[in-house]
Amino acid sequence: MSQYRVLIDADDKKGLVYKVSTVFYEHDLNILSNSEFVDKENNKFFMRSVVDGKVDSKQLQNSISKILPDGSNVEIIEPKKKNIIIMATKEMHALGDILIRHEAGELEANILAVISNYDNLENLVSKFNIPYITISHENLSRVEHESKIIKTIDSFDDVDYIVLAKYMRILTPRFVETYRDKIINIHHSFLPAFIGANPYKQAYDRGVKIIGATAHFVNNNLDEGPIIAQEVIHVNHAYGWRDMQRSGKDVEKVVLSRALKLAIEDRIFVYANKTVIF
Amino acid sequence: MSQYRVLIDADDKKGLVYKVSTVFYEHDLNILSNSEFVDKENNKFFMRSVVDGKVDSKQLQNSISKILPDGSNVEIIEPKKKNIIIMATKEMHALGDILIRHEAGELEANILAVISNYDNLENLVSKFNIPYITISHENLSRVEHESKIIKTIDSFDDVDYIVLAKYMRILTPRFVETYRDKIINIHHSFLPAFIGANPYKQAYDRGVKIIGATAHFVNNNLDEGPIIAQEVIHVNHAYGWRDMQRSGKDVEKVVLSRALKLAIEDRIFVYANKTVIF
Amino acid sequence: MSQYRVLIDADDKKGLVYKVSTVFYEHDLNILSNSEFVDKENNKFFMRSVVDGKVDSKQLQNSISKILPDGSNVEIIEPKKKNIIIMATKEMHALGDILIRHEAGELEANILAVISNYDNLENLVSKFNIPYITISHENLSRVEHESKIIKTIDSFDDVDYIVLAKYMRILTPRFVETYRDKIINIHHSFLPAFIGANPYKQAYDRGVKIIGATAHFVNNNLDEGPIIAQEVIHVNHAYGWRDMQRSGKDVEKVVLSRALKLAIEDRIFVYANKTVIF
Amino acid sequence: MSQYRVLIDADDKKGLVYKVSTVFYEHDLNILSNSEFVDKENNKFFMRSVVDGKVDSKQLQNSISKILPDGSNVEIIEPKKKNIIIMATKEMHALGDILIRHEAGELEANILAVISNYDNLENLVSKFNIPYITISHENLSRVEHESKIIKTIDSFDDVDYIVLAKYMRILTPRFVETYRDKIINIHHSFLPAFIGANPYKQAYDRGVKIIGATAHFVNNNLDEGPIIAQEVIHVNHAYGWRDMQRSGKDVEKVVLSRALKLAIEDRIFVYANKTVIF
Repeated sequence: MSQYRVLIDADDKKGLVYKVSTVFYEHDLNILSNSEFVDKENNKFFMRSVVDGKVDSKQLQNSISKILPDGSNVEIIEPKKKNIIIMATKEMHALGDILIRHEAGELEANILAVISNYDNLENLVSKFNIPYITISHENLSRVEHESKIIKTIDSFDDVDYIVLAKYMRILTPRFVETYRDKIINIHHSFLPAFIGANPYKQAYDRGVKIIGATAHFVNNNLDEGPIIAQEVIHVNHAYGWRDMQRSGKDVEKVVLSRALKLAIEDRIFVYANKTVIF
Repeated sequence: MSQYRVLIDADDKKGLVYKVSTVFYEHDLNILSNSEFVDKENNKFFMRSVVDGKVDSKQLQNSISKILPDGSNVEIIEPKKKNIIIMATKEMHALGDILIRHEAGELEANILAVISNYDNLENLVSKFNIPYITISHENLSRVEHESKIIKTIDSFDDVDYIVLAKYMRILTPRFVETYRDKIINIHHSFLPAFIGANPYKQAYDRGVKIIGATAHFVNNNLDEGPIIAQEVIHVNHAYGWRDMQRSGKDVEKVVLSRALKLAIEDRIFVYANKTVIF
Repeated sequence: MSQYRVLIDADDKKGLVYKVSTVFYEHDLNILSNSEFVDKENNKFFMRSVVDGKVDSKQLQNSISKILPDGSNVEIIEPKKKNIIIMATKEMHALGDILIRHEAGELEANILAVISNYDNLENLVSKFNIPYITISHENLSRVEHESKIIKTIDSFDDVDYIVLAKYMRILTPRFVETYRDKIINIHHSFLPAFIGANPYKQAYDRGVKIIGATAHFVNNNLDEGPIIAQEVIHVNHAYGWRDMQRSGKDVEKVVLSRALKLAIEDRIFVYANKTVIF
Repeated sequence: MSQYRVLIDADDKKGLVYKVSTVFYEHDLNILSNSEFVDKENNKFFMRSVVDGKVDSKQLQNSISKILPDGSNVEIIEPKKKNIIIMATKEMHALGDILIRHEAGELEANILAVISNYDNLENLVSKFNIPYITISHENLSRVEHESKIIKTIDSFDDVDYIVLAKYMRILTPRFVETYRDKIINIHHSFLPAFIGANPYKQAYDRGVKIIGATAHFVNNNLDEGPIIAQEVIHVNHAYGWRDMQRSGKDVEKVVLSRALKLAIEDRIFVYANKTVIF
């Protein structure tokens, strides 16, 4: 007996819950939790069920696919540790938060490696017996640099997610396309405010009273991918931009770790450049 | 064609979603939204569906009851304006917030009357052409006073909820029992902190850095009924207790109105002195 | 004996606190509260003191001016009710919140009038015996329409603040210039995100997980004036843009009322398109 | 030239700001920042200034003391790294957060040692080359156990703060008295709610919709010391108590680290079992 996560997205039609739950019932599966959402504007149906029983994944997938409209997606996921690669540059807080959670057993994930364009964080990462791979961008074109990173990533099997824990270089469309819906980034503003470089400086100049952070999947347009999680804190006139940056770190790390946890638990659907999160 | 809200609570058993959705399907009802929750500790199943179609309520209820375990509850609710009575004492903010929402058409509710033990708020309430009934407690025992209130409430038909918008008198068990799970109160603290009188003074004395408010159903034990909604704000050493009280008003009115909206939309299950809210 | 609010902004120099507090001391004034801030980047000093005693305002201002660098500003304000004019269009929540607070005596302000380009809110406003002046924009150019509004506003004496409680028309530079740093607007997004029309629709399309509201002084560039207060709430995929709009109203009204309170209490300095708030 | 933090508490009298700022002026000190607060109820004056210049600390203290009422306190603190000892039991999140901040250079503090009654966290702590001292409580009376801890603490010079990062044993009055206003604890509830053991289980049983954490100085009465910082998060019916515990960890670590930072920066006054925080 084991647990399966069943993820379905389909064009909405009357009777989908009935039909899917009928399949579960016929396979003698017990529903442990069930979430559904219908996007009425786009006539789209989303469902995530956790079921318990004894079943052949492939066969369950076929049974469900059969009763869904054409063009639907069904995933049957047996919970296992996800494999992640973290990319970072020089800042320690977001990476450190993930390392501690990993060490504490909070994450259902293996950290295969940390890749950085600098060696600053090597000392920290190697404490945790996790491979640290420095791939300097110096004297390399962006494409050459990324080719080396891709080669490194692809030397690992089954990479589920690439986590950008304050990786401060812009990714090319080729890189993004290679790992579509697999790259999770933390942006240090409540997007879409302050897209681009040094958002805390921008926030300071604008005189905002709240600052925030946004975890999102990366797509071709910088800072415009589907948002997974956001959080903010209040600031006031006494905050210079470096104070905002310092305070913002606590938000960044919490939001990134929260988004990573949602991804690891297969709770996120990406659709129309948005996320549905159960 | 119309919409129905279907509320089910039952002992949990395998196949409940399947069975209920089968009934919907057989009655040609379209599920507009669906929420389920299983309290594993107590083995209890909760479901709230909004369905669309043409059906006889009584017959639908029977069909669902038949497939549920003994001791289950099924309610089929055709959305209509709820009837509420507000009780207040002297403070204006929570009452005023409800009056404005009502005037703006934000609430699916009729305000049948406002009952108070003082006449201070009559001027405000009568602006909105809502009956204001002063029932002074002076020279009356608690039981005598409440008897007059009960008589007044019962002079209205179909009272769905009694909203205590800063009604500052303690209710007797008899009163509470008369309107079980129908009385919504706002308590000016994040319960269970600061039960009892003058919670802002208590909060000030304790030197807390957050204050809050709690909307809850009233049961026999003062301030111990099932919690519907809570919210807090940050304070600091510069707040005297009257400053806390002033700032707290904004939280109180928002939380009470939010709880009222949840009740009006039939989103609350009360169970084991807690609420399940969809 | 009475209380005075003393507001100072000056180029920063060593000894300003010493010099100002010396003046207070020499005038036998007791400091009830004192806030200072130095913007180091711009070398600017801000101070707000509440002092208690018996003094000639003009003379106190002179004494302080004398010890400050050239180009400084000193205001001595004897607390009195501020005079405000509210402008609205059709929505009731922000206006209603101010009306209730006014009725409850929460605001140290007189509401001289409500001006709207529609008559929808007249019924509400007249309940409170406040003049409601409809100035339709129909068949008028923007300039003609505003001229009528300016004429109306100027028919009142001593207007301290003009509060745009969801006034949905864009103001011309001329209008804004006429009432510089006196117009308080509520924008229904956490600026600078979603500038312009229908920010909730924009927020929905972008798939954000938080929405917010921003109270700010109005300057020539739409939605780009100095920010006074901001607040946010969390939303999720289940919120359509109308749900966001509905939920956003609670944030809007609270933020606008909070900003108005700060203005009324003379707590805001405007500087470099930002605010310093004590 | 260097910076000094000047902390003053005194009975309130007219002219204190004038007199203190006069002393600063006479010593040719520049005020970089200045915060004052008068607790009117208790007639107490608090002031924290950061001044810049060249001065003898002892002499400055004398000059200020002379102009203050009897019974006042003046501290002149030259910023230097504070020395802290962390006490923990088995949980990693709060300790890990401090370790990462320390490693990142975020804290102006030396971690002298981590003391625990178990060896579970030794592996983590020793990664960071910080002494880990296991002092088991097994077969020891509470007093005997604490005597060993006190001996260990006292083997270090100049311990500024003892940080209880989820140290799960109750301290005796003797221990608390030994390190009065030096012990910072994180309690996993928004105190004063859920004092005592397993607050998440208590919170779950009560059905609250928010949970929180409180950092406070420890005094003789368990969980009743002066509160430094509090934070909360929203939960709902779907959270079992272990889910609350899991989610609560993020709040706990952020609040404890925030409180520690405030202490390290000499921003906290303790007074009447409360804190004044600048």
